[in-house]
Amino acid sequence: MTKKAVIIGGGISGIYAMRNLLEKRGALKEEFNITLIKRENTGWVSVCGLPYALRGWYEIDKVVINDPKFFREKGVDFKTEADVAQINTEDRILKLKSGESLEYDYLVIATGRKPAMLDVIKNSNLENIFTLSTMDDARKMEAAFCSGNMKTALVRGRGIIALQAAVAAAEHKIKTTVLAGPPSLLPAGLDPDMGDMLKDWVQKKGIDFILDNKPITALKADGTRVRSVVIGQGGETEVPADMVVVSMGMRPNTRLAVEAGIEIGDTGGIVTDNSLHVKKNGCFMKDVYALGDCIEVIDGITLRPKLNQLASTSVVQANVISDNIISDITGDPCLYSSYKPCTGPVVAEIGGLHFGSVGVTSEAAGNSGIKTISGKATKLTKARYFPGAKPLTMKLIFDAFSKKLIGAQMISEISVSDRVNEMAVAIHAGLSAEDLINTERCFDPSLSLLVDVAVDAAQDALGIKSVY
Amino acid sequence: MTKKAVIIGGGISGIYAMRNLLEKRGALKEEFNITLIKRENTGWVSVCGLPYALRGWYEIDKVVINDPKFFREKGVDFKTEADVAQINTEDRILKLKSGESLEYDYLVIATGRKPAMLDVIKNSNLENIFTLSTMDDARKMEAAFCSGNMKTALVRGRGIIALQAAVAAAEHKIKTTVLAGPPSLLPAGLDPDMGDMLKDWVQKKGIDFILDNKPITALKADGTRVRSVVIGQGGETEVPADMVVVSMGMRPNTRLAVEAGIEIGDTGGIVTDNSLHVKKNGCFMKDVYALGDCIEVIDGITLRPKLNQLASTSVVQANVISDNIISDITGDPCLYSSYKPCTGPVVAEIGGLHFGSVGVTSEAAGNSGIKTISGKATKLTKARYFPGAKPLTMKLIFDAFSKKLIGAQMISEISVSDRVNEMAVAIHAGLSAEDLINTERCFDPSLSLLVDVAVDAAQDALGIKSVY
Repeated sequence: MTKKAVIIGGGISGIYAMRNLLEKRGALKEEFNITLIKRENTGWVSVCGLPYALRGWYEIDKVVINDPKFFREKGVDFKTEADVAQINTEDRILKLKSGESLEYDYLVIATGRKPAMLDVIKNSNLENIFTLSTMDDARKMEAAFCSGNMKTALVRGRGIIALQAAVAAAEHKIKTTVLAGPPSLLPAGLDPDMGDMLKDWVQKKGIDFILDNKPITALKADGTRVRSVVIGQGGETEVPADMVVVSMGMRPNTRLAVEAGIEIGDTGGIVTDNSLHVKKNGCFMKDVYALGDCIEVIDGITLRPKLNQLASTSVVQANVISDNIISDITGDPCLYSSYKPCTGPVVAEIGGLHFGSVGVTSEAAGNSGIKTISGKATKLTKARYFPGAKPLTMKLIFDAFSKKLIGAQMISEISVSDRVNEMAVAIHAGLSAEDLINTERCFDPSLSLLVDVAVDAAQDALGIKSVY
Repeated sequence: MTKKAVIIGGGISGIYAMRNLLEKRGALKEEFNITLIKRENTGWVSVCGLPYALRGWYEIDKVVINDPKFFREKGVDFKTEADVAQINTEDRILKLKSGESLEYDYLVIATGRKPAMLDVIKNSNLENIFTLSTMDDARKMEAAFCSGNMKTALVRGRGIIALQAAVAAAEHKIKTTVLAGPPSLLPAGLDPDMGDMLKDWVQKKGIDFILDNKPITALKADGTRVRSVVIGQGGETEVPADMVVVSMGMRPNTRLAVEAGIEIGDTGGIVTDNSLHVKKNGCFMKDVYALGDCIEVIDGITLRPKLNQLASTSVVQANVISDNIISDITGDPCLYSSYKPCTGPVVAEIGGLHFGSVGVTSEAAGNSGIKTISGKATKLTKARYFPGAKPLTMKLIFDAFSKKLIGAQMISEISVSDRVNEMAVAIHAGLSAEDLINTERCFDPSLSLLVDVAVDAAQDALGIKSVY
């Protein structure tokens, strides 16, 4: 009998759910139809690449990886400019805004997120107020950058996208101010001492920071265009801003799920079990899955729910969902897989400086009642007489009782991507500080040091000082 | 009461045992004296850096990291040009060849390795026959390279140092032939399909390979200088060679240990327990340790003894020994640590191509009766429109029954060092192919792909094909 999966949403989460189902459908004897419903008229777009396009590394169009035709030729009913009006989980039917009805055997909700804009900004109809989520957003921002009319910019937010937008603006010779809360940058991933290293670097690029708790209370205009941003209840501070970029407060987009009676957690994300089934009337529904920015996940260290809105998180979830749909159709339990609590490895390049993190920060651990010890070290990544040797600062956070690794943070002028993945596996493996010290690491003087910075950081946490 | 540790050997193993004791002696209330006995008149020399010096990346002297004075100023009795004649474990006394006697509370044997030269080469007194273990070796080889008299070279061996020597010779415009056994290069780390990728690359640098089982049967001379190498019992092949580099058959240097009655394993290395105590008369001796190239280790996958003569292996062993000496003096069991079975992560750059490996090869697994499945994938390490995107080939080897990772091999034009470490931790953690697929990896399009080559390789092993 023909089985049918319908995916709502064509962002990274929806696209990867579709890709994984395509890859695995060979295991099925049945006909298997896949429908994807996407609001925009695009195929697979790598939105994570947009900040680099804005920095002039390549044209914005480069972020289009596949057009809808590519997936249609693989047999997917890839619906663009389509919007779901209602989910009916009792009858397994979706109603589209076009009036069309779609039956499903398996439903995958990948509705993503949307910015929660401050009223003062949302209600403004001034020109040159931007967000950065879509290609269209990027095109508008690029046009502003290149117009020659932008002398000043204010970026609201201190996450990766906010900082990348600030760097892009500064690289277009626009005097840029970043406005965000204290104490430092990227607080989801970095302790303040590490965040400050990044702040010091970015400041040298001519970007100013206002990191306090004061809200934007007004926008001042020059005709229809924004001219400055007023900060604080008493209007104490006014920052000139020919453009404003808002990159904060991204909320799960759960309207359809809520209207269908699907349970939402305290974080605002859809609740799922470790098969990524959604919950309704107290039960997890084995034919409805959700993934990506619209769901909450369980933190791998604190075991509490959190939002972890990363493309890399979606990709693993897409794999789990596709495994479980194929397992359900075939009845083969070996094909089943489960989604594990999430340690959220993150990496980015911000104006030439790389940061990476995985696991919890000291603050997040403390908020969950976990006592920590931490160690920090700065060291070259290979012998100093080899070209390209650069310092790397690593901070490692351990559970104070078990001495197990629960967080890692890194800053360097070179990529820390593979190191973050290593530490993600180390956390998964339950490695202690001593394990990290006594784990053999590959060595070649042109590529590494005999005693790595990670070993120094672990020794620092245990109170062992290097003789050098 | 004053305690005294004596270290025999001033290579990486001895130096790191000393360094670690220096770092940790702060935990002691007693006086603690450290003596190191070294045959050469040098301090800490990074011999792993010698091949790069021969390639002209820097002067040979750069590999000197610290002179003896540096360690003497830290209070170490750093004896150079000194040689041990006899170890007396009953009375805890060493006799030096100078006639001096030294008492010890703790003895650390770090006597290293030496090449097992073929008789035909050992008995030859022709000029321009080289090994590459010491600075002095490197100086002689550099003089030959730069003499202008070397038109041809033969390198005997197919390990890292042999191949690095061959590349160095070729870069000096010397027509070079590598003579070694079948089937391919670096068989300790790479399956033949991966070894052949390296061979193809190195061949393009103008290096020839003779990979069969035929021995060198004679050296032909031009006066006192070697002129060619005759291969095969019937003298079938003659390879012109103005110089010969022998880099194979390194054997543990165990004469002193054997004479002291210390047990040697089937591999030829000193037997130790997981505290790195040596064994005598059937018992492990808690006051005598050994580490480095002179001992055998337990393979982390096959659990059989093997030689693993890497600087990176010594460094971990040095840490374990220093922990255990300090633990023994203080009586604090928390300071104790144990040396784990070894997965031997290795990495090197060979003429512009990087290779890395960890765990077992398919052949080594098979020899120990472990059935395997493997997967392989080649993929860029980041989005193709970012500068520096290069393909990386990864082969992953899994236990066929448990699907747990037991080996990883990589080849790329970019460093694979951090990836090898990641896979070392993954093996340690007992990650399965499915775990590797479902482990979240950090993503930024300028630094990584959403679906990493490791995921593709794991999927390949499970029979899942990418839609791309």
